[in-house]
Amino acid sequence: MNAPDKIGTYRFVAEPFHVDFTGRLTLGVLGNHLLNCAGFHATDRGFGMATLHEENYTWVLSRLAIELDDMPRQYEEFTVQTWVENVYRLFTDRNFAILDKAGRPLGYARSVWAMINMNTRRPADLLAMHGGNIAGYICPGLPCPIDKPSRIKKVAAPEPEATLTAKYSDIDINGHVNSIRYIEHILDLFPLDQYRQKRIRRFEMAYVAESYFSDTLSLYHDREGDVHQVEIRKAGGEAVCRSKLVFAPASGPTE
Amino acid sequence: MNAPDKIGTYRFVAEPFHVDFTGRLTLGVLGNHLLNCAGFHATDRGFGMATLHEENYTWVLSRLAIELDDMPRQYEEFTVQTWVENVYRLFTDRNFAILDKAGRPLGYARSVWAMINMNTRRPADLLAMHGGNIAGYICPGLPCPIDKPSRIKKVAAPEPEATLTAKYSDIDINGHVNSIRYIEHILDLFPLDQYRQKRIRRFEMAYVAESYFSDTLSLYHDREGDVHQVEIRKAGGEAVCRSKLVFAPASGPTE
Repeated sequence: MNAPDKIGTYRFVAEPFHVDFTGRLTLGVLGNHLLNCAGFHATDRGFGMATLHEENYTWVLSRLAIELDDMPRQYEEFTVQTWVENVYRLFTDRNFAILDKAGRPLGYARSVWAMINMNTRRPADLLAMHGGNIAGYICPGLPCPIDKPSRIKKVAAPEPEATLTAKYSDIDINGHVNSIRYIEHILDLFPLDQYRQKRIRRFEMAYVAESYFSDTLSLYHDREGDVHQVEIRKAGGEAVCRSKLVFAPASGPTE
Repeated sequence: MNAPDKIGTYRFVAEPFHVDFTGRLTLGVLGNHLLNCAGFHATDRGFGMATLHEENYTWVLSRLAIELDDMPRQYEEFTVQTWVENVYRLFTDRNFAILDKAGRPLGYARSVWAMINMNTRRPADLLAMHGGNIAGYICPGLPCPIDKPSRIKKVAAPEPEATLTAKYSDIDINGHVNSIRYIEHILDLFPLDQYRQKRIRRFEMAYVAESYFSDTLSLYHDREGDVHQVEIRKAGGEAVCRSKLVFAPASGPTE
């Protein structure tokens, strides 16, 4: 299989309800598209959720890092490319490029996935799955010029900045608060002025534990200049996810 | 122009993060698709937002009524058809059919739109716009076998059931809380058990006024058997939107 055959390419348009007040695609929607592309690409290669579920396995997203120079504007077409960079015994690295309508990179993303057995919740040995053929999909050498997901340190803030209860719209088919909703709740910590003056240059998320319907979720927030860390904790104090946001000055007209 | 040329047909797939815990497409996402289809269809006929904005006009959604026998399941393909049923001086009626992958109707929707001048906020005379050619897009006689949006009466509940603050993710490119987010906030009033035992057979929404970032939105809720009315009010008591939900017993396995 040639490198081009190993890359999944998917086209999108920035829909009106998927852009924010500045007219740019929201990071939550972009994250949703990235995870969908991961799903399409894996499905086409026999590693989709439907196939895995029949075998009692499922993919679990562990890390996501997105770094952007710009975002598609309302009605603009854009493309997401995705490929598998590496497969280890317990994790696989999947990368993404986000391209504008002319094919120029708007940004890149990296993700780290584990596979677990749905009965035992134990991790699967990826190199042993399906006779080891996942390794055949590795597409090395493609550029993904952003840092790997870093270790996100524990947030120090003693009090939460916001607290919410997980509701119907937060819950996915597995009964968990969905990965994208956490991103949206984190973005909602900031006032519009933050997004008028700045844009998110890099967003990182470490998914640590699951939360469920009616869970109380508290968002703890540390900031140091343009670098923000947000940790979401359940009522008992257990961390659900940890994120790091790096802002840069907003580019171009924002409204 | 023949009737088939007057119907817009758009294909979708129920994405993983667009289904709820029962594995069915959420009503908010369906509403988003319907409004997008309205946009695509209007744009192809010279009445899209981009063209109108250049002329300082914009479409305003006044009413939406959706009635469903079922919803697409995760990964299922479905189709939305849309057409203009009627054009009056100040309003136009746009209908929708939601079809499953075999082309069988899952449900229908009706919407009522006005056009306003963005400077004066006054309604436009639709029959006079673009030399009256909007009337040429009317597609009469197509079945849309659901009741028209009804008059939704004022909710009587003296106290709100929930109160929230409009945040970044709620706000659209016009600086308003977006039409779909109101639907999601209303759906979030109900516990998962409601959606385990029942499904939404009919959902109606009357959009009354705009709300903005940091507005306090209170949801007032009346119920009478399977018929629920929810009104969202701003802090001063002004109604922002009124909805009516009619539930029916859930169909088939829900999880």
